[in-house]
Amino acid sequence: MAWYRSLKIRGIDKKFLDIAWGRLNNLTKPRGSLGMLEKIAARLVAIYEDPFPVIKKKVSFVFAADHGITEEGVSAFPKEVTAQMVFNFLRGGAGINVLARHANSEVVVVDVGVDYNFGVLEGLVMQKVVYGTKNFAKEPAMSREEAEKCLLVGYNLAREYLDKGYNLVGIGDMGIGNTTASSAITSAITGVEVEKVVGPGTGIDGERLKRKIKVIQKAIELHQPNPEDPLDVLAKVGGAEIGACAGVILACAEKRVPVLLDGFITTAGALLAYKINPLTREFMFASHQSEEPGHQIQLSYLQLKPILNLGLRLGEGTGAALAMTVLEASLKIYREMATFEEASVSRENKSQ
Amino acid sequence: MAWYRSLKIRGIDKKFLDIAWGRLNNLTKPRGSLGMLEKIAARLVAIYEDPFPVIKKKVSFVFAADHGITEEGVSAFPKEVTAQMVFNFLRGGAGINVLARHANSEVVVVDVGVDYNFGVLEGLVMQKVVYGTKNFAKEPAMSREEAEKCLLVGYNLAREYLDKGYNLVGIGDMGIGNTTASSAITSAITGVEVEKVVGPGTGIDGERLKRKIKVIQKAIELHQPNPEDPLDVLAKVGGAEIGACAGVILACAEKRVPVLLDGFITTAGALLAYKINPLTREFMFASHQSEEPGHQIQLSYLQLKPILNLGLRLGEGTGAALAMTVLEASLKIYREMATFEEASVSRENKSQ
Repeated sequence: MAWYRSLKIRGIDKKFLDIAWGRLNNLTKPRGSLGMLEKIAARLVAIYEDPFPVIKKKVSFVFAADHGITEEGVSAFPKEVTAQMVFNFLRGGAGINVLARHANSEVVVVDVGVDYNFGVLEGLVMQKVVYGTKNFAKEPAMSREEAEKCLLVGYNLAREYLDKGYNLVGIGDMGIGNTTASSAITSAITGVEVEKVVGPGTGIDGERLKRKIKVIQKAIELHQPNPEDPLDVLAKVGGAEIGACAGVILACAEKRVPVLLDGFITTAGALLAYKINPLTREFMFASHQSEEPGHQIQLSYLQLKPILNLGLRLGEGTGAALAMTVLEASLKIYREMATFEEASVSRENKSQ
Repeated sequence: MAWYRSLKIRGIDKKFLDIAWGRLNNLTKPRGSLGMLEKIAARLVAIYEDPFPVIKKKVSFVFAADHGITEEGVSAFPKEVTAQMVFNFLRGGAGINVLARHANSEVVVVDVGVDYNFGVLEGLVMQKVVYGTKNFAKEPAMSREEAEKCLLVGYNLAREYLDKGYNLVGIGDMGIGNTTASSAITSAITGVEVEKVVGPGTGIDGERLKRKIKVIQKAIELHQPNPEDPLDVLAKVGGAEIGACAGVILACAEKRVPVLLDGFITTAGALLAYKINPLTREFMFASHQSEEPGHQIQLSYLQLKPILNLGLRLGEGTGAALAMTVLEASLKIYREMATFEEASVSRENKSQ
């Protein structure tokens, strides 16, 4: 069996949820009145299997890659922007840099498939598998071996950081054209029609949007990606950064570390991870509800409820970084609030 | 004219919105792709009238008061909990303490109407107007003079902090029975039927919920609060902490400082402030969508869109504190992201 199918991943043990709710229901507030903050705290306790977990170090991985499908005119920005944005990440001027600083998360920028030769560049993790994918309107985006390498890039990098003690992970993407690949993956895995999972990406509409839909429909017809074989889907209509995201999720699930998805592209990676091992889902948090219409379809397939709903559609891991602060707030509530006994506060009267 | 009607409040000047959007549209991201973060940043620039504003010091006011209406059996918790929670706030063990620490906001706890004699208590701001309101099922909650004093407590305290350089304010409440008063205010001001603005509060249902609705309906019939005279509404069916919240909002609007509403109770205060001067609305941020059903009715009346939707219904200013971190993130995006020129990133091609 392939390495990614045989990882030791154990789901959530209800015992730890019970421990968490025992404490949460004893804190000085009406039961459940901190809503999702309480649910997040309980899941974190169960993921870490620690009755008083602490978030030590946070990391935001940003995987950059190019997409041959841009030849079909599916994007508002020119392809060169992928490499230009890598430089922007390294100088600290992009959205993810700002929001990761806000969340006190380290940003790790990874070239997993940019069609540009960066040479040796300080701060850039060089793990290039391809110089951009092939145009999947005409041929498979990657070979199966390349797809597996992308997965391994994410997996190995995440393992390295988890072994160094990072215990909260956000994932992000940069790649002009990658909403097209993500739409194709989403339709292939969930079975939902292409029209419903395609959106404006960085900002197309009208004729270009129609063209994007047609390109994906034809590609799926051409390649017939097999939804039960996520590597097949990734190779045929995916992207290098999407495979790397799936790899990170596998490592987080294996090492019991929560992983924050960002928007549409990273959640396409989450669909692949889920199809590799459905237990990975228990370690995922949906940081926000993206404006990209297919994101809701992905999240309902994964049965994940978004934490934030701020109309974001930037990617890069920006939503994931912002949601890190909510996860931290949840754990602080869990750890720091006084119990009814400690505070000598009377309890509610549930009868009349 | 009454002092609160004659404050100098100036609304938002479109010129500053234009300055803000000029910069936001020039940052290295697709236009509008940071959604509400961008809209928040633009409003902050226009509120502060500063092209590069900085949030210096934050304060979370928590106003505590008791409610005579609890005699009617409208609450799940005994009345004593109001005073007990004041002690919990002062010891730092309540939800607001935890989330204000998270947001690096100072917590200021104010006794504006608790039915308990705290004596001199370190850390408690003593501005008691009443020892709890009267039972408004039988008589007005307060005299008009007392209602005005509550407003003044909030106004003066906020002015004091704004004069000390605090430039982001959150408001919160503590008062067993105060969802009942807030429902009455909301129905009186908006004209929406009582059944639609009454919810479970800290956790009642069934017969007690029906009783709560009837109590409010009868009280409105009995007192006929005049929606065009917010002090009349506050005096007849309000609460001391709700009046203080309205006073804080007036001071923030006057001094051009953004004020974060919390949930249902503080937004009842916002309705009063809005009826005193509709321009106050331009300085309000709805921090979250509360689970209390009447909150949505209040927000749509004020035309405010909630920032967070985490199913919170605790009060104390917890949602406001959490949303402070989102306002800060918005301003960091605005200030710290690189422009297309600075980063040498190509722009989108809007044509085909």
